[in-house]
Amino acid sequence: MSDHTQSGELLESEEAIIRHFVPLTAAAAGAFALQDDCALLAPPAGCELVLKTDPIAEGVHFLVGEEPQDVGWKALAVNVSDLAAKGAAPAYYLLALSFPTAPHLSWVQGFAAGLRTAQERFGCHLIGGDTDRRPGPVTIAITLIGTVPQGRMVRRGTARAGDGLFVSGTLGDAALGLALLRDPTRAGAWSLSADMVEHLKHRYRRPQPRLALAGALREHASAAMDLSDGLAKDLARLCRASACGGQVRLADLPLSPSAARSVASDRSQYQAVLAGGDDYEILASVPPQHQTAFQRSAAAAGIAVTRIGSLTLGSGISIEADDGGRLDLARSGWDHFATPGPERG
Amino acid sequence: MSDHTQSGELLESEEAIIRHFVPLTAAAAGAFALQDDCALLAPPAGCELVLKTDPIAEGVHFLVGEEPQDVGWKALAVNVSDLAAKGAAPAYYLLALSFPTAPHLSWVQGFAAGLRTAQERFGCHLIGGDTDRRPGPVTIAITLIGTVPQGRMVRRGTARAGDGLFVSGTLGDAALGLALLRDPTRAGAWSLSADMVEHLKHRYRRPQPRLALAGALREHASAAMDLSDGLAKDLARLCRASACGGQVRLADLPLSPSAARSVASDRSQYQAVLAGGDDYEILASVPPQHQTAFQRSAAAAGIAVTRIGSLTLGSGISIEADDGGRLDLARSGWDHFATPGPERG
Repeated sequence: MSDHTQSGELLESEEAIIRHFVPLTAAAAGAFALQDDCALLAPPAGCELVLKTDPIAEGVHFLVGEEPQDVGWKALAVNVSDLAAKGAAPAYYLLALSFPTAPHLSWVQGFAAGLRTAQERFGCHLIGGDTDRRPGPVTIAITLIGTVPQGRMVRRGTARAGDGLFVSGTLGDAALGLALLRDPTRAGAWSLSADMVEHLKHRYRRPQPRLALAGALREHASAAMDLSDGLAKDLARLCRASACGGQVRLADLPLSPSAARSVASDRSQYQAVLAGGDDYEILASVPPQHQTAFQRSAAAAGIAVTRIGSLTLGSGISIEADDGGRLDLARSGWDHFATPGPERG
Repeated sequence: MSDHTQSGELLESEEAIIRHFVPLTAAAAGAFALQDDCALLAPPAGCELVLKTDPIAEGVHFLVGEEPQDVGWKALAVNVSDLAAKGAAPAYYLLALSFPTAPHLSWVQGFAAGLRTAQERFGCHLIGGDTDRRPGPVTIAITLIGTVPQGRMVRRGTARAGDGLFVSGTLGDAALGLALLRDPTRAGAWSLSADMVEHLKHRYRRPQPRLALAGALREHASAAMDLSDGLAKDLARLCRASACGGQVRLADLPLSPSAARSVASDRSQYQAVLAGGDDYEILASVPPQHQTAFQRSAAAAGIAVTRIGSLTLGSGISIEADDGGRLDLARSGWDHFATPGPERG
């Protein structure tokens, strides 16, 4: 919890911690100002609820010493990203916090401020939660509840062979940013300007869920999911769920100028683009007759989308390299159980 | 994770773990067999949703080496207990699991079996979740979603001076059971029979949420909450939320024969009764004109309830000892942040 950078009194009781989160419930009557055992939610008529829980832990999903404002933003953003991919709108969230030792006032204040910025941006409200003390890393478990018009949730397993594959934004930035945070000398090796370094780090610290794309996905996508574990692994999941194969051309993957410079300097950094994780972009399959409309609708929403390949009969995914050969992926994405250490790398 | 007692292969991937939980979603179409990013929930007409998240961690909320079946039961039961106190019926739950190392097949199978027993008893279904790997204790974070008829959730802050105070079941058993699990020699010191020891341990390992009381609470209680942190602390919370005081007579607290024997042998064990935590009984305030009907309705539901005192004007709680004096509470309940160690004591 970055004790070296935090200051102020220690918050020794649950009540002392919870107090800082009560203002985040101001617009949620069913939160009872965090003074009741449970939260109450009156579902809006004609809507279904979409639910996601994705905990983040210090040293695993965010670095030790990260600014608490960034941690608060990220804790909510990673869940909002999932809902965006489903065509849903965030409404409420529950927050379960675990600290191994009493947290500093300044950390809790910063974290709550980051959450506030995020919930105002994403249009949702804190409705309940829990705080406890246990050994291990600081952990933030958010359960996000959103709404989607009845019958309109965008699924993962409903893509079909022949559909085009699209991604939002650019790929690999966050993984490259994390690499730079771990080893700042890479900035020189990759010939990055200070602005480029900052861009990549920011992409790691402040994922931008593509909430504005939800409408276009509901209207035009046959399937979608968010990219959190790397394109290669997540695309394989979408293909498996939809019982089809996928093919992607490396040259078609959208890269930011910073990422393009990095891979131009060091080709092995394509691993970050394909398998780095933490993109929080959206992968969508779109039937051919919808593709123009999807692109137009995404542009109207201010979200860049790029066609990166298509879905095929059969199974498995194929990534075509620049020379026409098939890419060998040493790492096929982030799997929490396949890597030995607590930190992604 | 009680590695010394577990066997079978290690489950190295998220997929290998998740597979064991898919059968728990069989009756929940919105779980998409755990193959989608989010869960989908169509709220029943005329109902509101009641939500609770209460994570449990090894070494904090359950002992290292506990049987995985008991852990699975407890993870769900502690959340069901909250909903029962609110007059709600459990419907669906999300499950976020964290392991520091790849879990054994036998542990995951046992845990899933415990969850199955619990969800069948409580009438709810797994609808989604997440699995990750992080340092620290095995952690199980369940978010439970239940239903309550519109406008009928039983609140914590709506009790009034003059209402009677009732608790379900008996108090202190689980805390005494935990003390016995930690130090088996206490069985002799407290003159407990083998059956009594077993009863107390079972009360710790297998909390029984008083779900059958939900209807009586909705009809007759002015306020209610579940007892998880000890009567003294939880009663103080109810009083604070309701802006009134509370008085309780020690002699009126319901004790099991096992607990009665323990406190008769060692008066200091009244601490377990008043402040031990883990009771998972229900504390309810009932207006005078409802008390007979409440007791009748509880009896019809098969749940013993006992009047232990009443709510008063003013603030603070008073516990009257057998000699008419006011009890001095060295510990006023379990606060996660007020105790130094990871384990309750």
